Amino acid sequence: MPDLHRLSRRAEVMPASPIRRLAPHAVAARQRGIEVLGLNIGQPDIPTPQPILDRMRQYPAPYVPYGPSQGLPEFLEALRTYYAGVGVPLAVEELFVTTAGSEAIQFTMGALCDPGDQVLVFEPFYTNYNGFAALTSVECVPVTTRVEDGYHLPDRAAIEARIGPRTRAILICSPGNPTGTVYTDAELEMLAAICRDRGLYLVADEVYREFTYDGKTSRSLLTLPGLERHAIVVDSVSKRYSLCGARIGNIASRNREFMDAILRFGQARLCPPTLEQFACTALTQVPASYTRGVVAEYQKRRDVVFGALSALPGVRVRRPEGAFYVSAGLPVDDANAFATFLLDEYAVDGETVMVAPLDGFYATPGLGRDEVRLAYVLECAKLERAMKILAGAIAAYGARVRA
Amino acid sequence: MPDLHRLSRRAEVMPASPIRRLAPHAVAARQRGIEVLGLNIGQPDIPTPQPILDRMRQYPAPYVPYGPSQGLPEFLEALRTYYAGVGVPLAVEELFVTTAGSEAIQFTMGALCDPGDQVLVFEPFYTNYNGFAALTSVECVPVTTRVEDGYHLPDRAAIEARIGPRTRAILICSPGNPTGTVYTDAELEMLAAICRDRGLYLVADEVYREFTYDGKTSRSLLTLPGLERHAIVVDSVSKRYSLCGARIGNIASRNREFMDAILRFGQARLCPPTLEQFACTALTQVPASYTRGVVAEYQKRRDVVFGALSALPGVRVRRPEGAFYVSAGLPVDDANAFATFLLDEYAVDGETVMVAPLDGFYATPGLGRDEVRLAYVLECAKLERAMKILAGAIAAYGARVRA
Repeated sequence: MPDLHRLSRRAEVMPASPIRRLAPHAVAARQRGIEVLGLNIGQPDIPTPQPILDRMRQYPAPYVPYGPSQGLPEFLEALRTYYAGVGVPLAVEELFVTTAGSEAIQFTMGALCDPGDQVLVFEPFYTNYNGFAALTSVECVPVTTRVEDGYHLPDRAAIEARIGPRTRAILICSPGNPTGTVYTDAELEMLAAICRDRGLYLVADEVYREFTYDGKTSRSLLTLPGLERHAIVVDSVSKRYSLCGARIGNIASRNREFMDAILRFGQARLCPPTLEQFACTALTQVPASYTRGVVAEYQKRRDVVFGALSALPGVRVRRPEGAFYVSAGLPVDDANAFATFLLDEYAVDGETVMVAPLDGFYATPGLGRDEVRLAYVLECAKLERAMKILAGAIAAYGARVRA
Repeated sequence: MPDLHRLSRRAEVMPASPIRRLAPHAVAARQRGIEVLGLNIGQPDIPTPQPILDRMRQYPAPYVPYGPSQGLPEFLEALRTYYAGVGVPLAVEELFVTTAGSEAIQFTMGALCDPGDQVLVFEPFYTNYNGFAALTSVECVPVTTRVEDGYHLPDRAAIEARIGPRTRAILICSPGNPTGTVYTDAELEMLAAICRDRGLYLVADEVYREFTYDGKTSRSLLTLPGLERHAIVVDSVSKRYSLCGARIGNIASRNREFMDAILRFGQARLCPPTLEQFACTALTQVPASYTRGVVAEYQKRRDVVFGALSALPGVRVRRPEGAFYVSAGLPVDDANAFATFLLDEYAVDGETVMVAPLDGFYATPGLGRDEVRLAYVLECAKLERAMKILAGAIAAYGARVRA
């Protein structure tokens, strides 16, 4: 009898999430009675807007049926209203509702790339792009950015040097996860020029669109002239309305041929969640003050975290411009060992901190070994305690390593 | 300036859903004031169990956070209880919650197959398997079954003749969509023997597990001895509790190496929907009488549809044993043209019927051209009217074609 076939190569290369791989250590810490301040995952603690919560609890039907593959018509209309409000007029055919941003990226990779094709990404990048690439057998080719530059883009030559015959698209995330970087108009226009000149698609993950600080704004790819066929935006309500677990996202593009392919990808999985789309039709009733309040709160939190980090000796960090992450180089030999140390061995007054080691956000081996990502998704008082714990842990860890 | 790259080959081969491609014709019919009796899609009209609906409306938190990638612990426990109740004891590590059965199949294909690898399916088969295969660049290789045999399996030699060096798994659906066929113990044991002898995985889509008629039951793959490493079950609450739009499914397997790969696939997309998992933890409170009542109702509906179909001259049909579908050969030249005729040109007392042409459920070109699938998901009175409309339409269509 022959052996059972091995699993696929892509199952082998599918990475364990660096955001979640420390979870067992956090569970163990909590079992020892330690309070774990979770800065490892971008899970906001801010309440969902009341109109959406209310509508969620008022679902009227006696069962939960399939919706259309493209999305519920009333939610698509709400999305159109939302995009028009951020200066992006779209036809309904230019929108497609997905099961969160995750599915939006996965379908986009599948529609643009065949197995072995390549997508250019700027590392450190949202680690789950690797997972979607593995599922679809696409290769993420990294262009490195550096904490010393605030993770802004290198020059055009450095980017074009990484474009090859299998490159199909450039994928960006701005405001950026894990970097907090907001690309400037000049950066977006450089990328647009590259894509136009090289026949590439330009895909922007804009789920943090509103999360920009110090009066900065983030320009949507969909406002760039002459890029209509190239530009694809992936988006999500997860962060905008504290609905990470709702799994509602969307694709937006004026490339009708691409959108037709996405519809066919979407038909295979029938539809995105009905109940949450129903709830999210209320997003048109969310007042602008909600978003202003949320962003003001995150700016305060950023100030707490950045202020504390930049005061620590040996820490390399630039002020984040958006999203709710900061990535920083720490004076530690190994951020994974340090993050594990925090959970397994360190606590102050019964509390410790969970961070995400940044090596898993790089595709180039060896990079990011001393870097971490912090998601400032807790209230300021907790963040202040977290930063003190982090400072103490760096000292204690350093002493232990030297010993 | 070079042309923009073409979309991927898999975007080209990604099929439009044959279940949904007639949707624009249905929309047009409704706009003309015609009531369309939808037998084209497996969307049950039966109310969701009250404990689940109640819990859905009582979601307590002020926001909807990510859950664990594997699923909410309390929902995993509810699933364990459910499986134990159907004679399948499982450890929690042997379960993984997915975004509906769709994601369960997609992850399973991805974990078992690399691009170009093959999965054996029995045609006519659930058409969306093609979509998941296209996304993951896997090939569905068909073994044909026939309406005259009630779509039961051919002999072992006919199945093994289709196994090649790239075959990684056999994928079945029992009780079957679109066939209504429930495989016998002997059929399951034959498939198990083939998979053991040839080192293949055996994947069973068991989402219609409870939907069996005339006292028949459907045996889970997970009860077959000696198949622990080979057997993978994909499952969903969609049909069982009228929660098609909830997008909650799961994978169940005792192959721990496979389940570890699935966890990593799942981490990339963070988590399945939180709110519906929360609601579905109440499945342990659903009384057995709910399921008995649902199945009795579907058996009545099946009797209406099968009785009417088998009385029609020229119709080829066998009594469905399970699920809520019947596939039948009609005395028409082209089931697509006939289905379009129903929507565009035919009505009785302001009503018409929407059916799913079966050619899209075959991988072999040319098969199923005169076959349709009917989902008997409406109450008996509507089904009786639908079957009269169908009978009249067959006559009218035939007269038109001959004219």
